[in-house]
Amino acid sequence: MEPSRGLASFDHELGRIESLLLEMGGVVEVQIAEAARALVTRDAELGEQVRDNDSRVDEMEIEIDGLAVNLLSEHQPAAQDLRRVVSTLKVSASLERIGDYAKNVAKRTTVVAKEQPVGSAAATIRRMAKLTQGMLHEVLDAYVARDIATADEIRNRDEQVDQLHNALFRELLTVMMEDPRNITACMHLLFIAKNVERIGDHVTGMAEQIHYLVSGEVPSAERPKGDVTSYISVDAADVAEGR
Amino acid sequence: MEPSRGLASFDHELGRIESLLLEMGGVVEVQIAEAARALVTRDAELGEQVRDNDSRVDEMEIEIDGLAVNLLSEHQPAAQDLRRVVSTLKVSASLERIGDYAKNVAKRTTVVAKEQPVGSAAATIRRMAKLTQGMLHEVLDAYVARDIATADEIRNRDEQVDQLHNALFRELLTVMMEDPRNITACMHLLFIAKNVERIGDHVTGMAEQIHYLVSGEVPSAERPKGDVTSYISVDAADVAEGR
Repeated sequence: MEPSRGLASFDHELGRIESLLLEMGGVVEVQIAEAARALVTRDAELGEQVRDNDSRVDEMEIEIDGLAVNLLSEHQPAAQDLRRVVSTLKVSASLERIGDYAKNVAKRTTVVAKEQPVGSAAATIRRMAKLTQGMLHEVLDAYVARDIATADEIRNRDEQVDQLHNALFRELLTVMMEDPRNITACMHLLFIAKNVERIGDHVTGMAEQIHYLVSGEVPSAERPKGDVTSYISVDAADVAEGR
Repeated sequence: MEPSRGLASFDHELGRIESLLLEMGGVVEVQIAEAARALVTRDAELGEQVRDNDSRVDEMEIEIDGLAVNLLSEHQPAAQDLRRVVSTLKVSASLERIGDYAKNVAKRTTVVAKEQPVGSAAATIRRMAKLTQGMLHEVLDAYVARDIATADEIRNRDEQVDQLHNALFRELLTVMMEDPRNITACMHLLFIAKNVERIGDHVTGMAEQIHYLVSGEVPSAERPKGDVTSYISVDAADVAEGR
């Protein structure tokens, strides 16, 4: 049996929106990678470029949302089809926020590039960025393929990002206490690391959404929550005495 | 002419969703106020309570989103009505994020409460919190009333929050440099202040959305962007010499 013209056109339009989401995801991935590269190579100009490119991400969100709202308006889908369209709105919103975090990393890079380098902090942040970039790439593939197993695996992988973040947080607090001249750089590096950690959280949220979209159920097992930096304190006396 | 049964029911359902959004906004407002109070009174127990209450905010988002998707599914609205329903999804997502920021303030409060107080930082953060709380309250009223003038006014008010944040950021960097024993407290206070500043940004985003919902146009005038903390650096030598 031939699908009716209405149905074929709905799937076609939805496919077009999902292709745009993949394209938007690709732009955001590049933004993450370039922001991290600007940090490691202390390249303020590249940082500026990443900042400027964020407007492209914002434009793509507006374009995708417009197409999704048109699709709702013209086809008035129900049940699973409706859920599929609503999920495109959520994915585009997540990608826009991730783009914002990459932009913020790039903004702070212009200050960090002027300060003394702080140990291996930039390299650690780049490792975190690479992890989140890989997670983002795979989560979008899993989204289009409705691949619940990969989505669940990505959700667990965020713990690695959190662990790098925790270790870096402690290290930077210690470095600040040892020598106040490092404070400005460390402060911005802490905020940069937090931005990358938040990217991981957003990808995790996308993975949970895929689980829900495919199965109709919220993922049951409590995700391992690795970020404990809100609770970390380092004792200045310990630092002074090398404890 | 009597409205058709279908139309009346759509408006009724949408009104119900908007009432729930106001209720959710009320819960989030209390979360912001209580998180700030916990910080100022150094009340770790109250902080814990705010953390626990965040699940209520999350539940409300899920409830509202479910009602909105049902409304789309059953009434299949087009044009302006569709835009009104989609906007409820965006407002609930913003409120959930603002709730997350309040929770994060409360989490860090449990660490800050154990450290030496740092000047008037907590009081300044409470002022920022009060400003954003007022903005949030009014933006939700403006949303339900489709009041574009109030929305535009709130959008401009965010600059006051940003200015308090900038001044506090500089002050805390200076305090850290003067005495490394303050570093742990200052670090968390900087992240707390950043969270409150982000609440202001989200309220501003809601105000812009109201403008769009009512007029169909993105607000034209560039909003005054007051947050410059991504670029702030304080010179340790200046601090040491009291400059």
